[in-house]
Amino acid sequence: MEKNYKELLHQISTFIFDVDGVLTTGDILITAEGEMLRSMNTKDGYALKCALQKGYKIAIISGGTNEGVRNRLKALGVYDIYLGAHHKMDAYEELLDLYNLSPSEILYMGDDLPDLPIMEQVAVAACPQDAVPEIKAAANYISHRDGGKGCVRDIVEQVLRLQGQWDHNVGAKND
Amino acid sequence: MEKNYKELLHQISTFIFDVDGVLTTGDILITAEGEMLRSMNTKDGYALKCALQKGYKIAIISGGTNEGVRNRLKALGVYDIYLGAHHKMDAYEELLDLYNLSPSEILYMGDDLPDLPIMEQVAVAACPQDAVPEIKAAANYISHRDGGKGCVRDIVEQVLRLQGQWDHNVGAKND
Amino acid sequence: MEKNYKELLHQISTFIFDVDGVLTTGDILITAEGEMLRSMNTKDGYALKCALQKGYKIAIISGGTNEGVRNRLKALGVYDIYLGAHHKMDAYEELLDLYNLSPSEILYMGDDLPDLPIMEQVAVAACPQDAVPEIKAAANYISHRDGGKGCVRDIVEQVLRLQGQWDHNVGAKND
Amino acid sequence: MEKNYKELLHQISTFIFDVDGVLTTGDILITAEGEMLRSMNTKDGYALKCALQKGYKIAIISGGTNEGVRNRLKALGVYDIYLGAHHKMDAYEELLDLYNLSPSEILYMGDDLPDLPIMEQVAVAACPQDAVPEIKAAANYISHRDGGKGCVRDIVEQVLRLQGQWDHNVGAKND
Repeated sequence: MEKNYKELLHQISTFIFDVDGVLTTGDILITAEGEMLRSMNTKDGYALKCALQKGYKIAIISGGTNEGVRNRLKALGVYDIYLGAHHKMDAYEELLDLYNLSPSEILYMGDDLPDLPIMEQVAVAACPQDAVPEIKAAANYISHRDGGKGCVRDIVEQVLRLQGQWDHNVGAKND
Repeated sequence: MEKNYKELLHQISTFIFDVDGVLTTGDILITAEGEMLRSMNTKDGYALKCALQKGYKIAIISGGTNEGVRNRLKALGVYDIYLGAHHKMDAYEELLDLYNLSPSEILYMGDDLPDLPIMEQVAVAACPQDAVPEIKAAANYISHRDGGKGCVRDIVEQVLRLQGQWDHNVGAKND
Repeated sequence: MEKNYKELLHQISTFIFDVDGVLTTGDILITAEGEMLRSMNTKDGYALKCALQKGYKIAIISGGTNEGVRNRLKALGVYDIYLGAHHKMDAYEELLDLYNLSPSEILYMGDDLPDLPIMEQVAVAACPQDAVPEIKAAANYISHRDGGKGCVRDIVEQVLRLQGQWDHNVGAKND
Repeated sequence: MEKNYKELLHQISTFIFDVDGVLTTGDILITAEGEMLRSMNTKDGYALKCALQKGYKIAIISGGTNEGVRNRLKALGVYDIYLGAHHKMDAYEELLDLYNLSPSEILYMGDDLPDLPIMEQVAVAACPQDAVPEIKAAANYISHRDGGKGCVRDIVEQVLRLQGQWDHNVGAKND
């Protein structure tokens, strides 16, 4: 892709995120009963709410099946959630059909090999600082923040700022 | 604000804290059932107890609604807790009316955009090291410590020291 | 051992891992009821699945008895799990007998003194960056990553790459 | 104290530890129900077991009242556990009377102001790297490791090594 990623951000209407290692840290806390807890960040959550209030589409595509993360995302207002997506490209294509979206308006953020096929399709392929080398090599933008530690806030805020949609009132009703 | 923040600390009688990213790390652990766990620090808790024993007022204003944090704060002796504060300024003004407080005696610590309106009103606006840039720009004092990792202890201890209220016996009954 | 560890990786068919400090961070979260939670990493989990799909054997030998970790490993497809192994060498020898394995095809990764006897037997003795000094001194390979933070992914990926078994399709069905 | 701390370690028979910020990280995870989880480290636990096997006395004095930590410590073989110790010196003196101990054979590790009175009594006052400044100023030995991250292993291993009691067989039955 030859365009500078900053230019490409102007055309983004839709964010798609992987879960483990992007919206979460990739660490999984395991209880004696085998229940798994994941770690998300409130600054990321604030950015998701701001983007939704301004009319951006937010979607999640994950190979995992964590219901807790689903509940947290729904509480933030995110409803397009594909968990247990064994083939991520299938979910991606279903999403594009459903909303009649073009790859040119989509930003995808992923951190590991199963994210590579989608990253090769979208206008902006972004990743956290702690993504694996193959993903960093394929990304238009590498955040200075790690997964679950603000990488989502970083990229969402950049898009909204460039498009004149980031202001101090947005999302002010809740943190 | 033209005064040095150290001078302003002399007049502080009341501390108000945001929760996520200030009293907690801003990381949220999510269980499979969607329950959310937050991380606080014992050194911060010790400082809150010391300040309360010396007669300072401690209040909490948060847009979130975490009952666990409320219980932990009550156990430390903090009772002025505004959770689910959709408009933080409303809670702030209610608190000032209730106790007949002046902004000149208030220190507020926040970390993200919803905290900005209150920070523009109070005598001392403080923030943790990992606050967002807009908040750091608006703060009189930026702690060297992150949210949930000692930023509360840092600022409370500074105020008590300057006012001659920090000594080794205070709070010694419990840690 | 005089061979370069990279050469030795060519002959590895079987990975054996310690749990605490290798597959987990070594931190244990303790609930009020005394339940213990451990932290694993999704990038490590992905590597384990890739190796299993390619036909490598994965085994676990731990002195601890965490059932949650056992469940997580089973979900990833790991079935040779020795927990509560008071003498790790006994479990190691049982495993070699069971599958008719030779030490020359085994890589073991451990982080603390109870791992030393096995490390002295196997072809490749590996450890995370935060292993204790005695273990680092005994290891052929010291990962640049800590326990529970990618050291397992690091070594598994190296073996699969050297043997031409690491490709982008492997494990792509799930993350 | 004029003697070098290394010399003083030769006479230590008994270790006393604070909990929050020493045996744990000082971070407290809080559930929605107000339950509190604390984080301990397996390398510290291994050192406690080694010391107990070699006949050292291990005691805990904490102002807090965490039953989960008590259960974990009992599982490691530690039975002299004073929780909810509002005045730590009372617990300390009770312990000395109970076992007819002299301050000259005691090492105490603490991290915050309530630990100061005991630290002024014992032969060796140690603290983690992230102790508060007053405690670091009062300590004979400041570990390079933080609370809940290996500071206990560091000091216990030093004492056992100096006294010729640290060997690879000790504690080898479990990790």
